[in-house]
Amino acid sequence: MRKVDPERHEAKRQQILQAAVTCFAQKGFHRTSTAEICAEAGMSPGNLFYYFPNKQAIIAAIVEEERRQTADYFEGTTQATDLFAELLDFMDIVLELASDPIYLKLALEIAAEAMRDEEIGKLVTKNDNELQTALNTLLRNAAARGQVDPTLDPADSARWIAALVDGVFSRVAIDPGFNPLEQRPMLRLLITRFLRPGGAGDLLSATSSQG
Amino acid sequence: MRKVDPERHEAKRQQILQAAVTCFAQKGFHRTSTAEICAEAGMSPGNLFYYFPNKQAIIAAIVEEERRQTADYFEGTTQATDLFAELLDFMDIVLELASDPIYLKLALEIAAEAMRDEEIGKLVTKNDNELQTALNTLLRNAAARGQVDPTLDPADSARWIAALVDGVFSRVAIDPGFNPLEQRPMLRLLITRFLRPGGAGDLLSATSSQG
Repeated sequence: MRKVDPERHEAKRQQILQAAVTCFAQKGFHRTSTAEICAEAGMSPGNLFYYFPNKQAIIAAIVEEERRQTADYFEGTTQATDLFAELLDFMDIVLELASDPIYLKLALEIAAEAMRDEEIGKLVTKNDNELQTALNTLLRNAAARGQVDPTLDPADSARWIAALVDGVFSRVAIDPGFNPLEQRPMLRLLITRFLRPGGAGDLLSATSSQG
Repeated sequence: MRKVDPERHEAKRQQILQAAVTCFAQKGFHRTSTAEICAEAGMSPGNLFYYFPNKQAIIAAIVEEERRQTADYFEGTTQATDLFAELLDFMDIVLELASDPIYLKLALEIAAEAMRDEEIGKLVTKNDNELQTALNTLLRNAAARGQVDPTLDPADSARWIAALVDGVFSRVAIDPGFNPLEQRPMLRLLITRFLRPGGAGDLLSATSSQG
């Protein structure tokens, strides 16, 4: 029986995922063959199939990697003093990822695949649920500390922050004039005004224009 | 030579488009045949091809119809006194459309097709440009009348309003807990706080948290 060195195993997995990301970003999921991923990763098909049984398993692992990274980020915020600053930093990361052409292409491929493939769809929904739970918790704790408006429902605020994250990626995909990094001050202003309005006058004008 | 009655011609076109929308929403663009659209519209293939040479032409006509309706809406706002209220009304229409399962499915199909088909992609980008120009003009005029914060760049504000419109559709697609009509007060609050903050305190806190 062959002994598995966990570190070596993980390094190989990461090598395959990296190669797959490169291929998927260039040609899309459906036009990429496992043979091309093997060539990019510099390994034989037999070796690749030892790590991932098929292409769907590679896509699933990429979505899972995404989930893990988001979870790690929010895990790291639990010790922070200024939770609102952590939220703004998270949005900075979103803008940086959206300005990376490979990440952007991959994110759009995953969104499209989630509509076509039920298994990938479930994983994407799971990631989205986790992101919303993390945002909800952060906003709830921030409100308790007086760092964001406590009158806002944190679950609903989390939904609109998630809508803004989605919106960033769809803007980059559709509008060549939308430069994510240049939009950083505007996004920070939008979120700041939304979550911590200056005073009573602001709430008043919001209420009166809802009539 | 057969005489064309323009009204009758337009009514037939609309009948085909309506049938196509029903089919596309049920099965998606790629799994819908022109034969199925004919059956749904109750007409022969020869008759359908007289109006649209192929399925792509039908999709293009649906995207063009969308463009016309948006243009009509903003055309109607030019005579309005309260331009900010017109913007909020526009967002209400977005929420209503996103809560219509047929429209939602169609919007997601069009977004996916825009990535696959260059011609449809160009039409969608054109619609998006027109929407942004219309929002930009509305926001510029609203700022001149003191109805929105004049310190915001109207082109950038228009981009973030467009990002919120995209975000609404992607939220409905991915998050079963996102009910667009229930989110109406929250979206109005978000846009109101963003575009007309209460006072100096708000701007101050936005500036200090950007550091």
